[in-house]
Parts: sequence; C-alpha cells; structure tokens
Amino acid sequence: MCGIFGVFGHPEAANITYLGLHALQHRGQESAGIVVSDGDHLRPVRKMGLVADAFTRDELAGLPGHMAIGHVRYSTSGESALKNAQPFSVEYVHGAIAVAHNGNLVNASDLRRKLEMDGSIFQTTSDSEVLIHLIARARELETEHRIVTALKQVEGAYSLLFLTEHKLIAMRDPMGFRPLAIGRLKDAFVFASESCAFDLLEAELIREVEPGEVVIVDAKGLRTYRPFSPEPTRFCVFEHVYFARPDSMIDGRSVYRVREALGRRLAKEHPVDADIVVPVPDSGTAAAIGFARQADIPYEMGLIRSHYVGRTFIEPQQSIRHFGVKLKLNAVKEILNGKRVVVVDDSLVRGTTSRKIVKMLRDAGAREVHLRISSPPTTHPCFYGIDTPTRSELIASSHSPEEIARYVTCDSIGYLSVEGMMEAVRAAAPGDGAERRHCDACFTGKYPIEFRPGTISSLKRVVN
Amino acid sequence: MCGIFGVFGHPEAANITYLGLHALQHRGQESAGIVVSDGDHLRPVRKMGLVADAFTRDELAGLPGHMAIGHVRYSTSGESALKNAQPFSVEYVHGAIAVAHNGNLVNASDLRRKLEMDGSIFQTTSDSEVLIHLIARARELETEHRIVTALKQVEGAYSLLFLTEHKLIAMRDPMGFRPLAIGRLKDAFVFASESCAFDLLEAELIREVEPGEVVIVDAKGLRTYRPFSPEPTRFCVFEHVYFARPDSMIDGRSVYRVREALGRRLAKEHPVDADIVVPVPDSGTAAAIGFARQADIPYEMGLIRSHYVGRTFIEPQQSIRHFGVKLKLNAVKEILNGKRVVVVDDSLVRGTTSRKIVKMLRDAGAREVHLRISSPPTTHPCFYGIDTPTRSELIASSHSPEEIARYVTCDSIGYLSVEGMMEAVRAAAPGDGAERRHCDACFTGKYPIEFRPGTISSLKRVVN
Amino acid sequence: MCGIFGVFGHPEAANITYLGLHALQHRGQESAGIVVSDGDHLRPVRKMGLVADAFTRDELAGLPGHMAIGHVRYSTSGESALKNAQPFSVEYVHGAIAVAHNGNLVNASDLRRKLEMDGSIFQTTSDSEVLIHLIARARELETEHRIVTALKQVEGAYSLLFLTEHKLIAMRDPMGFRPLAIGRLKDAFVFASESCAFDLLEAELIREVEPGEVVIVDAKGLRTYRPFSPEPTRFCVFEHVYFARPDSMIDGRSVYRVREALGRRLAKEHPVDADIVVPVPDSGTAAAIGFARQADIPYEMGLIRSHYVGRTFIEPQQSIRHFGVKLKLNAVKEILNGKRVVVVDDSLVRGTTSRKIVKMLRDAGAREVHLRISSPPTTHPCFYGIDTPTRSELIASSHSPEEIARYVTCDSIGYLSVEGMMEAVRAAAPGDGAERRHCDACFTGKYPIEFRPGTISSLKRVVN
Amino acid sequence: MCGIFGVFGHPEAANITYLGLHALQHRGQESAGIVVSDGDHLRPVRKMGLVADAFTRDELAGLPGHMAIGHVRYSTSGESALKNAQPFSVEYVHGAIAVAHNGNLVNASDLRRKLEMDGSIFQTTSDSEVLIHLIARARELETEHRIVTALKQVEGAYSLLFLTEHKLIAMRDPMGFRPLAIGRLKDAFVFASESCAFDLLEAELIREVEPGEVVIVDAKGLRTYRPFSPEPTRFCVFEHVYFARPDSMIDGRSVYRVREALGRRLAKEHPVDADIVVPVPDSGTAAAIGFARQADIPYEMGLIRSHYVGRTFIEPQQSIRHFGVKLKLNAVKEILNGKRVVVVDDSLVRGTTSRKIVKMLRDAGAREVHLRISSPPTTHPCFYGIDTPTRSELIASSHSPEEIARYVTCDSIGYLSVEGMMEAVRAAAPGDGAERRHCDACFTGKYPIEFRPGTISSLKRVVN
Repeated sequence: MCGIFGVFGHPEAANITYLGLHALQHRGQESAGIVVSDGDHLRPVRKMGLVADAFTRDELAGLPGHMAIGHVRYSTSGESALKNAQPFSVEYVHGAIAVAHNGNLVNASDLRRKLEMDGSIFQTTSDSEVLIHLIARARELETEHRIVTALKQVEGAYSLLFLTEHKLIAMRDPMGFRPLAIGRLKDAFVFASESCAFDLLEAELIREVEPGEVVIVDAKGLRTYRPFSPEPTRFCVFEHVYFARPDSMIDGRSVYRVREALGRRLAKEHPVDADIVVPVPDSGTAAAIGFARQADIPYEMGLIRSHYVGRTFIEPQQSIRHFGVKLKLNAVKEILNGKRVVVVDDSLVRGTTSRKIVKMLRDAGAREVHLRISSPPTTHPCFYGIDTPTRSELIASSHSPEEIARYVTCDSIGYLSVEGMMEAVRAAAPGDGAERRHCDACFTGKYPIEFRPGTISSLKRVVN
Repeated sequence: MCGIFGVFGHPEAANITYLGLHALQHRGQESAGIVVSDGDHLRPVRKMGLVADAFTRDELAGLPGHMAIGHVRYSTSGESALKNAQPFSVEYVHGAIAVAHNGNLVNASDLRRKLEMDGSIFQTTSDSEVLIHLIARARELETEHRIVTALKQVEGAYSLLFLTEHKLIAMRDPMGFRPLAIGRLKDAFVFASESCAFDLLEAELIREVEPGEVVIVDAKGLRTYRPFSPEPTRFCVFEHVYFARPDSMIDGRSVYRVREALGRRLAKEHPVDADIVVPVPDSGTAAAIGFARQADIPYEMGLIRSHYVGRTFIEPQQSIRHFGVKLKLNAVKEILNGKRVVVVDDSLVRGTTSRKIVKMLRDAGAREVHLRISSPPTTHPCFYGIDTPTRSELIASSHSPEEIARYVTCDSIGYLSVEGMMEAVRAAAPGDGAERRHCDACFTGKYPIEFRPGTISSLKRVVN
Repeated sequence: MCGIFGVFGHPEAANITYLGLHALQHRGQESAGIVVSDGDHLRPVRKMGLVADAFTRDELAGLPGHMAIGHVRYSTSGESALKNAQPFSVEYVHGAIAVAHNGNLVNASDLRRKLEMDGSIFQTTSDSEVLIHLIARARELETEHRIVTALKQVEGAYSLLFLTEHKLIAMRDPMGFRPLAIGRLKDAFVFASESCAFDLLEAELIREVEPGEVVIVDAKGLRTYRPFSPEPTRFCVFEHVYFARPDSMIDGRSVYRVREALGRRLAKEHPVDADIVVPVPDSGTAAAIGFARQADIPYEMGLIRSHYVGRTFIEPQQSIRHFGVKLKLNAVKEILNGKRVVVVDDSLVRGTTSRKIVKMLRDAGAREVHLRISSPPTTHPCFYGIDTPTRSELIASSHSPEEIARYVTCDSIGYLSVEGMMEAVRAAAPGDGAERRHCDACFTGKYPIEFRPGTISSLKRVVN
Repeated sequence: MCGIFGVFGHPEAANITYLGLHALQHRGQESAGIVVSDGDHLRPVRKMGLVADAFTRDELAGLPGHMAIGHVRYSTSGESALKNAQPFSVEYVHGAIAVAHNGNLVNASDLRRKLEMDGSIFQTTSDSEVLIHLIARARELETEHRIVTALKQVEGAYSLLFLTEHKLIAMRDPMGFRPLAIGRLKDAFVFASESCAFDLLEAELIREVEPGEVVIVDAKGLRTYRPFSPEPTRFCVFEHVYFARPDSMIDGRSVYRVREALGRRLAKEHPVDADIVVPVPDSGTAAAIGFARQADIPYEMGLIRSHYVGRTFIEPQQSIRHFGVKLKLNAVKEILNGKRVVVVDDSLVRGTTSRKIVKMLRDAGAREVHLRISSPPTTHPCFYGIDTPTRSELIASSHSPEEIARYVTCDSIGYLSVEGMMEAVRAAAPGDGAERRHCDACFTGKYPIEFRPGTISSLKRVVN
C-alpha cells in the first residue's frame, strides 16, 4: 500500500510534502520520496525507512521549488527496495517527469513485455515505470494528453500524481478504487490520499478527485477534465475497515464514524453476555467503542499498545519473530483477571495474531474470550493495491468461523456480515451514500476488473 | 528519567536485556546501553537513540554471557550525550564494574569536588561516575560492601543495578523513590524498573526490591541484606500519574487502575455538563475512561495519536517546532463538531501543549471545551530523577487555575486535589496501601530530602 | 579517464575483479563498480571512492558467480556521480546486460536525442546508456551481433566489456584509441586496460585485443571476429607519456622503457649544464632517470612524494586548495641547496603546478631551476577519453615556451618535440613499432575523427 | 609509533594541526586526534583512520581556538582502538588537560597497579592515562611542575605535548629517544615530531627540543627549563634508517643524506658485480641511489610502488593476505629481464617481505638477485616506541645472514655493520655529530634503560 501527496504554489513545497507524507506514514513505512520542481529542474530524494528518519534538514533545504509530489511505500520486494522507491522520475524528450502511484496495474506485465519487445529498457520492477514508458511513447503535445493516452492502455487501480517542470497533474482511475483529495493551503493547492494530511498542514479539504477525473494545476490555475467513459465507482471498503486513519474523511465519510457504526452493527449481529469490551488498539478502537455502547458493556483498555512499534500487518521484517505481537501489545492483568471479555478487532487475516492475543488475554486471567471482527471473513487477495497474503494464507478462504474460533482458541467468534458492513458504511454518510458503490472483492471474490489466468502471480509482485 | 533492566543466569543475557529495555523504552529515548559479563570480562555497547535502532543483530551476537544489565536514558545534556550514556563501566583494582542508575544524587556535585581535590579524574558529567569513584576508594573486600560504603555518602534517589564479572547487585535507596522489581524467567533472575518488561519476556513478577534493600545474585543464588537504617518510604506519585506504563504493576498497584481511579475521583471533584469525554491519548486514556464512567458521559476518541512520534513531554528536540502537538495529535471533526467536550489529560506542565489541544478541539467544531487534569497543579521541580522544567517554567507555580484556564482558552479547568489523588492511589491497592507513603514534592514542594542552597542548579544538569 | 577489468571462468570472479580494479586504480578514483553473473542473474555493486574503501568483504561475498566485469571511473560531473558510476546494467527483453566503458563517444548527444524522440527514457547522463539503448533496439538474435549493430552507429573511442548472464564480450574501437589486453589466469580468461592488473593476479598476458576486434567468451570458449572495416590505428600517445602505470605493457611496449627513452631524447634536444637531475615523482621518475643517464648528471630524489595523496592531475576536489602541491610534494633542502637543478616532469597542463614546484625548489635553495618536459606542449583538449581542461585553460595553447618559462619562473624550459616523442615511442618497440600509428591530437590538434561544430561542449560532459 | 604536533598562537589552530598531522601521517595511520583550546575549554575530536578521512570540514570548523595539539597513532591493540586514540584529555580539579605522547613508558604497568590500589579508575589501556593520573595527584600549583613531578616517577621514552586551557607544554625525555622540534609560523609557535610538518606549513624550523627540556608556551611567551639531571642522549637510530620521512631534518641531520650515506657505505662493505641497482621503494630509495653512485652501477626503478596502499611494516590489517607485497609493489619485466640485480632495502624484519620481493624479481626474469640492507641485522625488539615484532619473530635474532639469504632465496645478502651505520650517521652531520649518541638496541640488544624481568610483555601492549 502507499500514500501520495502533492502541492502546487507554495514556496516551501518540499517541507510541506515532508509533513504531508508524515501524516500519511501509516500507508507505507518501507520507503519515502519527494520530487520538487523549481520551474526548471526536478530534484528527487528517495530513501528507505520512515519519513522522519529518511530526510535530513539539509536534504530538504536542497530541494528548492514551489511544487512537489511525494510518496510513502510499503512493498513485498525487499531486495531492490530503494530502486523501486517512488516518486519515479526520468528525463525524456519532453523534459522531466515524476510520478507517485497508489494502486496496482492489473495488466502491467503484459504492457511491459510489449514495451521490451519494442526496445524499452527497464530500471525497476515497479509498474509505475511502465506508465512512464507509455507516456514517453505517446505523441500528444500536452503532458496531460500523453498521460491519458498511456492510461487508456492500462487496467487496474490508480490514484496518481504527476509532476513536470511546470505542472502538477492528479487523477484517479475510472472506478475510483483508491482515495485522493484536493485541499487548499492559503494560495496553494494540495493533494493527499487522506484528509488527515490536510489537518496537519491546517489546509482546507475542498473535495475528492472524482473517479476518472484528471486535474491539472499550473501557472494558469486548476482545471479538470474527464477523458474516460464513466463507470460505476468501486471505492475500496477495506480503507474504511482498516487502512485509513480514523481522523480522515474519505469516500465522503468520517472513517471513525464508519468504524463506530461497524462496531454497533457487530454488537447487534453477534451479541454476547460479557463483563468488558476490549479493543485491539489502535485499529479496533473505534469499533470497540461502538460495540460497547450498543451492547452497554463497559469499555476498557485491557490491551496496551507500545508506542515504539508499527502495525503488525504492515511490518516487512520482524527482527525477533518469536516475540511477535508481544512487542506491540501487552495485557493489563488487573483489568482482565476473572472477566468475560469481548475483544474487538478490525479484521482477521492469517489468524496467527488473533491466536496470540487470545492467549495473552487468557494468560492475564480472562475467564472467557469472545472475538468480534468488525468486517466479514477475508477470503480473497486484493489485486488493487492492498498487500494481502495469497489466498492459501487467508485462513477464512478455507476455514469456517467455527474452525477459526477453534484455531485462535476463543470461546466464540463473530464476523460482521457483508450486508451489515455495507449498511454501516452507507449509514455513515446518509446524504450521498446510497449511490456510492464499493469494491468488496477481498470479502466476496467479486473482482470488478476481469483478468486472465496467469496474470495474478505477476501482478502481486509489486504493490504501490 | 531512565529505565533499568538486569538478568542473571540466562544464556542469552544480551538478547533478554535488549527486549527488557525495549519494554522500558518509554522511560528514556535518548540513549540505550547494555553491559554483559561472560564470567571473565564485561563487554559494553552504548548508543544514542531508541533500543530497536541502537543495536544491530551483530552487536548483540558479540555480547556473549549469562548476565547483563541495561539502561535507557533521557537527559537534558545534549552535547556530551553518548559519553553520558549508561551503563557506565570501568576497570579498577578489583576488576571490572558497571552501573545502571535510575534517579538523581542530590549531593553529587559536592562529592565530585571532594574526589577531584583528591586526584580523581572524571570522564563524564554523570553522577553515576561519582558512585564508581566512591566504590573504587572503598577498602572492603566484597563488591557489595564497597557499594554500601559508597552509598552511605550519597543522598538522593537511586534504583541501581551493578554488574561485575561474577555478580549482579540490585538496590533501591532507603526512601524507595524509584521503582525496581524482581522477576523470575525460568532459572534466571530478572530485574526491571517496571513489571511490563517481565510481561514481554513471559517472566514472573516475584516482588519489588524493598526500599534500602541490597539484593545480590551470583553463582550461590540470590541473597539480600539491609545495611541502611529504615526510613519512611517516599515512592514517586508521578510514576502513577504519568510516567509508568499503564500495564505495569509498581508500588504494589496496577498503574491503569490508579489512573482510572484518578479519573473517577476527578469527575466527582469537578463535574461538568457535557456531551462527550475525550482523552489526550495515550497518557490520559485510563483517567478519561474513569471520568466518563463516573460522569456517565459517552467516551469518544476525539483525538487520534500518530503512531510515528514519541511523547511530547519527553522529546529532546522538536525538529519542526511550529507544528508541535499537531505532529502527534489530530482531532476528529465528525466526533467533536457542535459538542460540549470534556478533555482529560494527566498533568499540565507549561500549558503550551494544552493550549494547542484546546485550539485543535475548537477548530474541529467543539462548542465547549472543559479541561480536566487527573493530578494537582505541578508547582515544583523534581530533584529525584524526573526531568521537569525549572520552577519558573511551571505555569502552576505562578498562576491560579482560573488564570491557566484563560491562558489555555478552555471554558473551565479542573485539577484533582492532592487529597483526592492520594486517596485514589491508596484505594487502588486497598491491602497495603494505607502504610505506603509517597513523594508528592512536585505538587506540594515538600521535598523529603533537605538540600542546601546553591546545589539545585547543578543537581539538575544530568538526570539518570 | 577509466579502467576496465573482466574475468570469465573463475569461481571467485568478484574477488578477482576487485583486485584487478585495485591495480587499475590510477585510471579512475571517483567511483568503482563490479557486476557479477552466476549464470542466472547479474548482480551489481557501484560505489563512490577508491576500490579498497568502496567494497566491504560482505558485499564481495554477496556477489557469487564465475564471470564479472568491473570499472573505475574519473569524471567531471560531480552532482550525479553515483548514478553515472559503471558498469551500467539493465534488464531488457533479451535478459540482463552490463557494460564497462573506457573512452568517449563523439556522437553520443546526437544519438541520444534521436532515441528520446523515439520514446526512450534515460536514467543517467552517461554515453554508455546510449549504447545500451541502441543494443536494446537492435533486432539480431545474438548479443554480440546486437552490440555490433549498435556500435556501427557510434563514433569515438571505446574499449568495452559487456557481461550477460552467459557471456563476456570485449572489444576495442577500430582505431584502437584505448588499451585492452587479454590474459589467462589458470583456466580463466581475464581482460584489463593495462597488464599491471595481470601481474597482481599472477595472470599471464596473452595479447592485446586488436583495434576493431570483438572477443566473445562463453561456455564454448573464446572466439573472435572483426565486423568493422579496417582503419589506421590511433593509439593514445598520452597513455605512454602520463596515464598508464610504468610497470604496464601497452601498445606492445613497456611504458617504463618508453618514458626512459623520452627522457634520454629530451636530454639530447634540450641539454643543460647542471648539478643534479630531480624528477617530479612519480610520473616524471622514469624520464628523469633517462635524462640523467644521457646527460651524465647525478640523479637525486630532491622532491619527496607523500604516500597519502593521489595525483594532482586527477583529484576531483582539493579540500585545502591553498596548500595544493605542498600536500603532495616536499623539497629536500640538503639536496637542493646551492645546486643547479634540472627538474623533469611528464607534461605541463595549466602551469600552476609547475610554478609551485619551481618555487618550492628555489625556496629550498636551488641556484638554478631548469624545467624539462618529456612531451610536447599540450595545446588541444582530448575528446577520446582523457579528462583534459578546455583549450583556454591549456597554457601552451596560447603561450610560447618562453612565456611559459616566465610564468613558472624557471631559468629555462625544454619541451620534447613531437618527432622526438614519436621516435622514442617507436624506438621502445623496435620490432613492430614502425607500423603503429598514434593519436597525438592533444599535442597537434590533428583529431583522427572529424566532428561537427557544436558537439564539442556536450561531448565533454562525461568522460568514461 | 606515533606522531605529535602542536601550535600556540594561531587563529586557525585546528586547521594548522590538521595539516601538521597530515605531514606526519607516516608515523601512524590507525587513529588521529586533535584537541583545541579557546582559552576556556578543551574540545577533542578523535577518530579511527587517516587524517584526511578522519576529520570533516564541519568538525574542524567546530574546533575554535588559537592553540591545539594533535596525534597520529599506530598500535597493536585493535579492539579498543578508538578508546586509546590520542590526544587523551580529561577534566580534573585544576581544569582540563590533554596529552599527546610519542614513545613508550617502561614502568607504566607498575605505576598503574599502584594507582589502582589507591582507588584510581582507568578508562583506557594507554600509558598516557597513567601520566595524567600521576599529574592529577601531584600537589604543585603550576601545571608544568605537576607534569615534572609525574614524569620523575616514569621511565622510558617520551616526547610529549600537553595542552591546558591556557598553556602548551612540550618536552622530551632526558635521553631524547624520540624527536620533537620547535618551529615558528608567523607569530605562532609550532611543535612537530619531524620538520617535514613545518615545510608543509611554510613554518621555520628553529631548533629541536633538547633531551630533558621542558618548553612552556603561554600568553607570556615561550620559556624553557631543565628539571632533570643530564644524561647521555640516546636518539633512536632507526628513525634515520627507516621511520622518519627523508625530507625531514631530525637529530641535526637530513634523513635523506643519512640514508644516501648508508647506501654508499653499504656499497663499500658489500660490493657486488651487477647490471642494475633497484630500490625497494620508497624506504630504500635514498640508500639505493647512494649504493648505485658508489658502485657505479645504473640505478633503475625496477619495482613500482602503488599509490594506493600504505607501508607494509605499518599496516595493522591486510585484508587480502595472500596478495601481500604484490598489492604494493610490482616488478618491471622489461627492466629486470636477464639482469644481475642489486636490490636495496632499509631493513629486514621477519624476512617474509624480502622473500616475496626476491621471488617477484626472479619471476620478472632477473638472472641474479643480490639483497643489500642499509642497516645491521634487527635482532632485538624495541621498548621505546617502535612497534617491532617480538624477538622470536625477528629472523636475524636466530639466523645468520647466510641462513637468511637461503630463506629469502637471494644469491647474496649484505647487511651494513653497526660501525658502518654509526659512521654514516655521524658523517651526515659533521659539525656536532661526534658528540651525539644513539640508541641502537634493536641491532645490538644494548638497552639504555634497564628493566626488570616480567615487565617486557606488558610493556609491549600499547605503543604511542
């Protein structure tokens, strides 16, 4: 998964991007990059690691310019990690161009093979480089037209930011899988995967980039056009369930509100007689508050999260594998001892983490442990940008909830239904919610984009 | 402030200490160190930064031995930071010795001057080095006796771990300002500032080292003696209020339970008509849960904490000062908009952070903001190991609650009373709580150890 | 300037290349790189700095394979130095390919513009990348045929080593500007810019790669073909005068013997009545020995060279500019005091170094200083791979020897004539010397390859 | 071995010391350090590696002050190398003091044991720390008097530079084993192990510090006193033979002139019928020139020294042991083929290097190889600061010249006689040479300072 950020028209574009990426850090911790334009040249810096560690004050000072784009990235391909860090930038016949990509191109391998047959040379294994090659071969005069020509050959999920010497171009794929919003910071325009980046900057959220919309910002101001034929939208529901920050507005909704509603609905679908409701912090917190309120059971922070580790789901390496979840979470014995506990988590992927959490709660004295998951069973991998494991690793693809309960050793398990999830998501934005459609392929296997057999494994290689 | 950890009798002493320090990371983020003994030599590694960043796999592998001590440190003295990192270790006539110190010696400057007059040479500005010089000059045969001779010349707060080629020695000062507990990990003994370190290791908490107790572990096993005349104990109440981790047991109590009780008591002392209770996460969370429950007002996570920054109170440098609290906290507009909000924090030091939080809540649409602090006004600096600002920087030393409310721009403010705080602390451990006494000097100015004028400024230079 | 090395058929190909590059270090000190093939993949490591500093033991151990090529580089383009470090390696439709280049392509800019117009994207400013693009667009089946198709579009100087998963290909341009030799190390074939690399490895020098020859080594053994129409050879005479190591055999001659002969000839052309002959070490040493013997004047090491600096001519940055030559050379007063001194250097470029040396000799007490240069006046820049300054900086392009003598403050100056130089070069290899022709463009302005106006400045940007 | 440098009264004291150390780099390559005083504080920087690599521009800029001392060090104790880097600096009751030491204290271990018994704590294994402890315990008021009190307890070889906030103090031991000279750089005084450092700075050599002399420089100027009873001087003859730079004046003589005289004398003592004289560069160069002239045999640079390695004798680690001498030297076949060769080296320690050189010459075609050594057989280790191997490793301690010739496989060997060496040394400074006496213990076993059994092994641990 990845986060992208852009700014046009601010004298400290690099610093603004640095801060914006910091607010999007949860979307990717493996590498971070910024490309700045001063009107004449693009200057890139790409680094491994967290935003706060990756850039020095001197490096930022060496990036003058009033427009910039940035990227934070998580990926599975460890070996060539820095090479694949984004934004990807090159010089070509029309000058310089850089791209920051959130999503995944389903037909990238095919396109790459064709380009290579035609003499193209690739530096990275990233599908963003495929995009750039397509753009370089397009014959249109304006960058935005070359980009559209290139993207018409492409299938998949993409929220994109492009930077040239003079322009910033933002766009989302016609189905709108991944988020991207437009904000205003004084005289500057800002773009971010999530609105929490605007809050940090005290920028104002204007609206989201629409699915299939191309937004161009340059010296003449902001303009927009829609070169793609309209398609039904398919915003990723997993962004609401787990991925986005709870303080963000995405898809026209407050993520926190959605999660609280998921928790309330979960309490209705899977009630249980218990003494306390405990969240798996921090991703399960809002749902647990909703559950506790709906069920009228006291809410307690029976699991404490260390401030000094990242999310389990997203960490590329665990240096001390044996300790796993314990490095991140600890149980509070005084709270749990002798209690019947409802523990609320957002999703259950392999089951190994949940199993350790249940054990931790029991070791702390919990008399009963009832696991409640604020989403449906995760049965299918994502091909649109979320780095889920392959199907065979997804425990719910081959096991019933009862079997899973046995594996994780809880007294009962309760998953939210697909309908319940969708109703809660809709309910969180009553005004326009009815019309919006979502991608729920990871829960249902209904992939909105068809693909041919054989492409799946190669698709999964690199996620932006 | 600092955290200390020790282990005796485990084949992977360095790895165990690494994990123990990781669990104590909240007690100090500036530097980390481990000293290991293989029975013949002490091997030290000391580094700047967080435990997880500081040590490489190779470095840990290069520290063979079955006993070790470790230290995490926060200090104000930036320039010579690595030199002052602990454990401090030297070779002297009796062999090698290392020390890890949590606390502060009130008469360290005096002792140092005397030692220097006598020809001693100092390498650091740490008062732990004073201790080592006193030990080197003691004439007793056994290390523990030399240590006691040295400590009888010393005044102040100290929880200490010593390591020689053959022994681990743990001790607390006679008043017991700082915590230190004994645990058991299979055949090994472990020592830690807080019990949360034992939880990570799946070690069992046996008991706390008693104030004034000296515990010696060597090949002959664990033995203990009490060379100091008994004094009334003075455990630091601020450990409960803010410093310790909520999942720790210290001072015979669950820190979480104490904080929840502080919150309930706070709701009784300062009730308010409001729509939601919002904690300042994570340090205000337990108190906010207690407050919400007592007041029967819905609890909401209206402020979201970033996973990618440390605690404000403890960060030595803020690279982007202007953004301050915003890098750490963000308000959830959908939750706060139009609401009357009770915001609960653990303490209020300078007032600048609270002021920013109140503004953040109001910008998010809060109709009223009522600040509730789960401790009394912080009016006096600490000389026993907590790195508080000087008196002139403590806003409560010169301003009334009403003036502070005006400064932080909240609609009302409510501090917990000293009596309320003490009752809550006592109530959280009904069994033995009555007999325990606490140091509350930072709230009352009643310093348990007298000191002469002139010493204060020098004392404050380095905090272990 | 650059040095290249390759090996095929040795189980420690990376280590062998490391050592070979070390022996060629004098040909480039800015960056160093190795690419290894294990038959399946190419693995590159490219670093800034000297060979001995650039690679760690671990990095070399992480480069398994039995064939490798390497490169040491000096260049003027500081900013993007690492990006331009060689060998340059890519993946394309036929697999992986890497190239190490010594020389300079005269029409690289034109070719690049054409490729970009056709949709090619460039990552570096190196002309080696142009080569790779031309190869990627060639349609032939065999790598060596694609390479020849590419090189037929290219003009300039090139000694090249290519590596694919299965093959090593070595070649020189039809005029043979730059050296490249074939050696044998047990069962392996080795290739190096100079034979001194074979001496270090105890490999045997077999012969030089002929101008215009393509040598292919793979599992089937070594074979060779000559796809270019024959042209008169033009080996760089400046390699003899200055660039190559004196212990190398290049161009069928011992560099040491050539330099000694240049010195003897110089003594005949510019005799002088003096007490001692002093070389500018180490590049002037062999010529000074020849001069002293011919003139029958005692040879003395009146200038001592520090072991801790590189060559003046080649250092990209001088951290303490004011000290210049003094950091490298010091005069021995006891030798020089009161003497009439002949000081022998290999060439004179800007005159600033010679001026400082003359001052140093006079300060040490020299009564007379007679400067003798073992090559003709350097009047023209090199476009074939030697990093000489532009014409305006070459003092001999606009000043007579007498004016130069006045500038460097010597009592007399004597340059070798072009004829004298050529005779000495020929004389050093009497057997086949007569047929060989050399490029002497830097002394005569007679460039063997014609070029159009406007290309010169761009050519000079990057020298391999 | 070590080199020391000091400056008093120059506004860029750190930069001057940096340059001075650079010129003394041949005296120690393992670590480098500078301590500067700005009149209030001492600021130290100590680093591993070469001077040019060790210090950054920023670090030097962070060392303001007009007086400084510096040190370059070679030592055998790898593990705690940085800890033992000099100058050693501490704070004690009289303020701050730093010391740079060239030499070796024979009774350091005894003194250290006594100090430790008395409660002293040591941070390093360097005998310079012993000195500082003795100074800290001295009761005199003035630093120079405390230093003398300390040094009266000490036996051994020492040239020392001390720096306090206000003073620079230079001294040599009463026998004057190690060199130390005074120079003048405009208004500043400079001190250096060898005069070549003055040449680089364009400072003027005034005179050497006399054996047993204490020189104090402070705001009042330079003054000198002689607190030790006079003893016969014993300047290290090995400085002339090998250690010092040929462009230095030490011991009242030109090192180059001494070496040339050693070579001439060697030609008289061991004449041989041969075609060419070849030096082992660079240490054998001057002697070879002398030999060639005396014997009237042509001098040729038949061995070429790489610019990219240090001296064999002094390198602490050889990363690629097998290649040994070949990384440093290469033979010129065209020069050597078919010739009867005299190869001249300065000394022969273990014999392994000479054996490889002889093989290299024979492999290059030499018909006969006659080894000539410009010093007597090295039979005894040095305890006064030169890092020679133990006696058992010195081949000449147990083998006759004939046996050594057989081992190194040369056709004949010739060592200079002790009388011949001394005569040549005396002859190189006819004026005052007669009175000077030298330490020749490494050739004769006549140690000028007696020592008790048992001390030898410990003495050897650390050489300054």
